[in-house]
Amino acid sequence: MTEPETEARKARARAWFESLRDRICSAFEAIEDELTDGPFAHLPPGRFERKSWERSEANGGGGVMGIMRGRVFEKVGVNVSTVEGQLEPAFAKQFDGVGEDRRFWASGISLVAHMRSPKIPAVHMNTRHFSAAKKWFGGGADLNPMVEVPEDTKDFHNRLKVACDAHDPDYFPRFKKWCDEYFFIPHRGEARGVGGIFYDHLDAGGDTFEPGFAFTRDVGEAFLEIYPKIVRRHLHESWTDADRKHQLFRRGRYAEFNLVYDRGTTFGLKTGGNVEAILMSLPPEAAWP
Amino acid sequence: MTEPETEARKARARAWFESLRDRICSAFEAIEDELTDGPFAHLPPGRFERKSWERSEANGGGGVMGIMRGRVFEKVGVNVSTVEGQLEPAFAKQFDGVGEDRRFWASGISLVAHMRSPKIPAVHMNTRHFSAAKKWFGGGADLNPMVEVPEDTKDFHNRLKVACDAHDPDYFPRFKKWCDEYFFIPHRGEARGVGGIFYDHLDAGGDTFEPGFAFTRDVGEAFLEIYPKIVRRHLHESWTDADRKHQLFRRGRYAEFNLVYDRGTTFGLKTGGNVEAILMSLPPEAAWP
Repeated sequence: MTEPETEARKARARAWFESLRDRICSAFEAIEDELTDGPFAHLPPGRFERKSWERSEANGGGGVMGIMRGRVFEKVGVNVSTVEGQLEPAFAKQFDGVGEDRRFWASGISLVAHMRSPKIPAVHMNTRHFSAAKKWFGGGADLNPMVEVPEDTKDFHNRLKVACDAHDPDYFPRFKKWCDEYFFIPHRGEARGVGGIFYDHLDAGGDTFEPGFAFTRDVGEAFLEIYPKIVRRHLHESWTDADRKHQLFRRGRYAEFNLVYDRGTTFGLKTGGNVEAILMSLPPEAAWP
Repeated sequence: MTEPETEARKARARAWFESLRDRICSAFEAIEDELTDGPFAHLPPGRFERKSWERSEANGGGGVMGIMRGRVFEKVGVNVSTVEGQLEPAFAKQFDGVGEDRRFWASGISLVAHMRSPKIPAVHMNTRHFSAAKKWFGGGADLNPMVEVPEDTKDFHNRLKVACDAHDPDYFPRFKKWCDEYFFIPHRGEARGVGGIFYDHLDAGGDTFEPGFAFTRDVGEAFLEIYPKIVRRHLHESWTDADRKHQLFRRGRYAEFNLVYDRGTTFGLKTGGNVEAILMSLPPEAAWP
């Protein structure tokens, strides 16, 4: 690859993550407008607030955090960041694909939604492009219901399967298993949620950029189609105080996973990442009763 | 030391931790009885529930968890555990003081109190005796107010200072600094609370057992005297919804510290410790607004 070709690819990936962010935010705001009933219907429909940040060190780049505290979405963060620089030697070693000069560039979108209604599952989605000596795509999406609704799980998994199957019949079983293994809380002996897909280091060098990028776009499209559908399915269902208590308890588990095990979180916190953006994933309220 | 002498010391240390536990539980239950006013006065006074657990592996020992969900104490855990066995070779290396045979014995008390009133500070206290090739005492106590009340901080520190000064004039400044350094949340750039004291590896071999044990008992006595005094000082103060919100926010920070940095917590979770006992420290409710 020539330098201009690589730059063009990075620009396309970045533009995709930003446009996906815009479409997701619009879709979520539309859901906020649709609420007509329930204990929070009297609140004004939520709107995303955006806040940009820049890396303060010698390394460049930054991102835009988008956060909405709405009447359906209790707290949802949608972040896009594009950063570049040189990894510290110690970290470069842990990072397959960084060359001798340790330079890297990375861009991605990351989303976590915690819902007011315990009947609506929480969700996490993240996709990214990494470009250094090696180049790859990574990401995934997983559903975190408070009480599992088999139809939601099935529809969420199936829609991701459709996205996967269009690219490689091995993707869905492999990436679903990877997701189940990753989002597991060993000390509790339980899964964080009901899974979805998780993939990483999906080769995007040379001739493999286009298929990798196309797959990553399809994962985004699948998420954008299926999650709002699941939210609307439960939008006007009522819930009890006991449901809410159980939701806060499940969110405690979510926080445990993110703070103890999630690589992005612990790595980010211990290497001077943007704390506000990293911890936007934490639930607005949680309980350890 | 002869074997019977060492065994007698271990038995005395264990008996102390258990009797301190009993006295603390009684003191906290007495406070529960005293509440006459405020939004939770209509609830019955809380009482500790005890639950014993045993280590399931080849290694022996176990403990007793005591937990009270009361009307003053929203959630308070007081655990005593006495465990023994052989450390895994990988962990033995990280553990100064374990001999060639990697055998160890440890007993201790550990306490975390999260209060209903945002005007009453949360607190943590823990002391322990470790007996292997080397023998030592360790522990400390630190205060976690939601909004700092200088008089509380001063009284808490001063009472611990009295306990320290009776043994060594260097103890208080050294152990206070150690506490401030330990209970710090690097990614937030802020302290978890207002500190107290923290000490570890306080030599308890040969002729140093008695002074170490006496000091550790005095730390327990200091805690038992000063914390109930601080609780009573604020027992009937009123608070606002904004105070409660701020309390939940501060508790989020407390959970962050324990799950990301606290050595006992992360070590315990990743090495098959008793999860319920380890995570009893987590707040009953917390918020990341």
